[in-house]
Amino acid sequence: MEEVMEFEFSKEFLDRFEQALINREDSYIKDSLQAVRPVDICEILSEFDFIFGKYVFDLLDATKAAEVLVELEEDYREQFIGLFTLDELSNFMEMLDSDDGADLLSEMSPTLREEILGNLKNEEKAGHLLDLMRYDDDVAGGLMAKELIKARENWTVRRCIDEIRIQAEKVEKIYSVYVVDEQDHLKGRVSLKRIVLANDDKKVSEILEDNIISVGTFEEEQEVANIMQKYDLEAIPVVNIRGKLVGRITIDDILDVITESAEEERQLMSGVTSDVEEDDSVWMISKARLPWLIIGMTGGLFAAQIADYYSVTLSVIARLSLFIPLIMATGGNVGVQSSAIVMQSLAAKTGFSETLANRLLKMLYVALVNGSILGLLVFGAIMLLFRDQLLAVTASIALLNVVLLSSFMGTVTPLLLNHFGINPAIASGPFITTANDLLGLTVYFSIAIFLYNL
Amino acid sequence: MEEVMEFEFSKEFLDRFEQALINREDSYIKDSLQAVRPVDICEILSEFDFIFGKYVFDLLDATKAAEVLVELEEDYREQFIGLFTLDELSNFMEMLDSDDGADLLSEMSPTLREEILGNLKNEEKAGHLLDLMRYDDDVAGGLMAKELIKARENWTVRRCIDEIRIQAEKVEKIYSVYVVDEQDHLKGRVSLKRIVLANDDKKVSEILEDNIISVGTFEEEQEVANIMQKYDLEAIPVVNIRGKLVGRITIDDILDVITESAEEERQLMSGVTSDVEEDDSVWMISKARLPWLIIGMTGGLFAAQIADYYSVTLSVIARLSLFIPLIMATGGNVGVQSSAIVMQSLAAKTGFSETLANRLLKMLYVALVNGSILGLLVFGAIMLLFRDQLLAVTASIALLNVVLLSSFMGTVTPLLLNHFGINPAIASGPFITTANDLLGLTVYFSIAIFLYNL
Repeated sequence: MEEVMEFEFSKEFLDRFEQALINREDSYIKDSLQAVRPVDICEILSEFDFIFGKYVFDLLDATKAAEVLVELEEDYREQFIGLFTLDELSNFMEMLDSDDGADLLSEMSPTLREEILGNLKNEEKAGHLLDLMRYDDDVAGGLMAKELIKARENWTVRRCIDEIRIQAEKVEKIYSVYVVDEQDHLKGRVSLKRIVLANDDKKVSEILEDNIISVGTFEEEQEVANIMQKYDLEAIPVVNIRGKLVGRITIDDILDVITESAEEERQLMSGVTSDVEEDDSVWMISKARLPWLIIGMTGGLFAAQIADYYSVTLSVIARLSLFIPLIMATGGNVGVQSSAIVMQSLAAKTGFSETLANRLLKMLYVALVNGSILGLLVFGAIMLLFRDQLLAVTASIALLNVVLLSSFMGTVTPLLLNHFGINPAIASGPFITTANDLLGLTVYFSIAIFLYNL
Repeated sequence: MEEVMEFEFSKEFLDRFEQALINREDSYIKDSLQAVRPVDICEILSEFDFIFGKYVFDLLDATKAAEVLVELEEDYREQFIGLFTLDELSNFMEMLDSDDGADLLSEMSPTLREEILGNLKNEEKAGHLLDLMRYDDDVAGGLMAKELIKARENWTVRRCIDEIRIQAEKVEKIYSVYVVDEQDHLKGRVSLKRIVLANDDKKVSEILEDNIISVGTFEEEQEVANIMQKYDLEAIPVVNIRGKLVGRITIDDILDVITESAEEERQLMSGVTSDVEEDDSVWMISKARLPWLIIGMTGGLFAAQIADYYSVTLSVIARLSLFIPLIMATGGNVGVQSSAIVMQSLAAKTGFSETLANRLLKMLYVALVNGSILGLLVFGAIMLLFRDQLLAVTASIALLNVVLLSSFMGTVTPLLLNHFGINPAIASGPFITTANDLLGLTVYFSIAIFLYNL
């Protein structure tokens, strides 16, 4: 076995593959995809037209095809699914884990969804899917799979192994056997390692771990991710409000949650509204970027009106306008920094978070330190470059005030957003910079008027 | 078993616990920490002074104490470690997984490190640690643990189970048994599930999975994370350059890598230089924020000089200065958006990424669409608010050009940084906004001079 890294497609391979598709060389296609993993097959498919994709798909064995379907990009899959008959789709649904199946169903039209559910031969699977469809995508119930291995306390290890054998095909990854009572209440778990090591006649109750962590069906996905990460869990059982074991979440799904939320945060911080990628259409990308640009532009027009309002001041002391960029840039930078630090605490919330008063006080101290240092530097620079003491005093005092104000805005805005259940990352983006621009200008002009005695 | 969530400490519990510490009520302390997980004990310890912390520590059983040591916050641990004798530290080292042990050693002074290594009774562990210390923190070798279960192809399942039994104490989480030849070359793996289900007399060679994924010791941690996420792996074997199996990386360590890199990205995007948290000291936070603020301020001073250079223009058409904020804000927003979209592609790099020419062309189209829309809106707004056609034309043409230029900068900068091995997230922060401010102002004034025929 050589060291296998990610599957890489050469231009040659793809050209040859396309040739095989055109010539319908079924055996070549089958052979060349034999050792390729489902997720890599998706990448090959995404290079070709749907019709070709369907052709390849029909040559795969059913289990692999079902896995490919799950791994496809959502945009591609949505259109791809239109090529399948109801029976084909139902067959795939029978083969998929319930969580993947439910995700797939939720992308379909309600009619198609009903048809597939009605068409399923496996009653248990249909029940699982119906059950999972009840939950929102972003709670534990929406993430869990129904497939898991249950055992009773009075079972022997041998009986556990028999149960695993029966369920093995349905449950791909087994880390533990979950122990329940007659009412399906979760009592604990036995790890697969313990099962391997225990004598076959050992009772489950003797090797059971009872102090285990579980989550409720309505626990938010972010919280589930925090718990699994904190306690290094590869799987976590999900219980309903009555303590009944209803499913299990595995770490691979949590990894996706974490990656997606990091992506969402990046978008919010950069003012791109919807989930666009570089290979989306020009219009899609433009549309996703316009809203925040228009908000920023509106802010800019307001700023123009503020400056216009102070036009008399500006005409008397023309040099004042030179430092508008300085004031604005600093306000924006300070605001984004402050909100990023608050967001960090919100994300890594520990048992003891700072009180609001402590937060604001510390923010004030930091702003005083940084504002004073920046103010002094600017004072020196203006004296050096423009030899204008009043201008230097005005700009540096305005700068200190802008740092204070922007820190306050940058600290309070994410806290407020978070309080109202809005992702605080939005406050680190164009929002805070636009708000700070307007505030900063007003402060700057007000201080100038006061100091110049206008 | 009730549904156990994260451990929450009440104020009452902590008060009572402090009382117990003062009165040295050993049995109360022991009892109350009995069912508490190591990571939660860390949170309790962090509430008290080191001396108290050490006192609690000495009451824990050794395995738990070692785990607590690993889970402590680095700042806290660094000082905490000073309270231990060499023998105590060596004992903990013997109990820890080699990856955790190596991480701990790497935080210590070279002298202490040597002393501990020399003091270890377990030769194998000392060898493991020495081996791991050779690798950088951010490559597979630096992430892997040496503890894993190896088997030979000609072994029976029974012999595998015996081997697991022997190694069970050393290897906490077992997902697979790795199959190697006489030279320790990785040949494949057998999952624990297969071992449970197979007959005891079955040969390993009959149930071995040979097409498995591994990584080399020098693979970057980010790449290891991508591979494990893409293929849904809970553990990955690490091989050296000669194909020998040298360790294994588990998903919990990868989760930490992913979270840390998201955190680093957030910091870079928000212009906070080092890893600060809200509960760090005022001076620490100020220091982490100053560099980018000073760079931004320097940019602002340059902007002042650019504006001063065009002071004649500004004095003739005073209204020009009104739109400096608009130009700057839009340039900054567009730049950050562009770089965020490029970063996304860089992070999720698929087999086929766009060529540079295609990227730039698409960026150009998007900029043309958005720049034109913004330009038209601004033209309308200025006509409405100021009824000044020349001003409206100047501002909107300048805006279009600034959008084009900022898009270009925002697209090219992260690509360049990435090319030189620098984290492209830095380009989404104050860097791009500062650069765009200066460029934007120059473009704005140049266009004004041209259009006003100055």
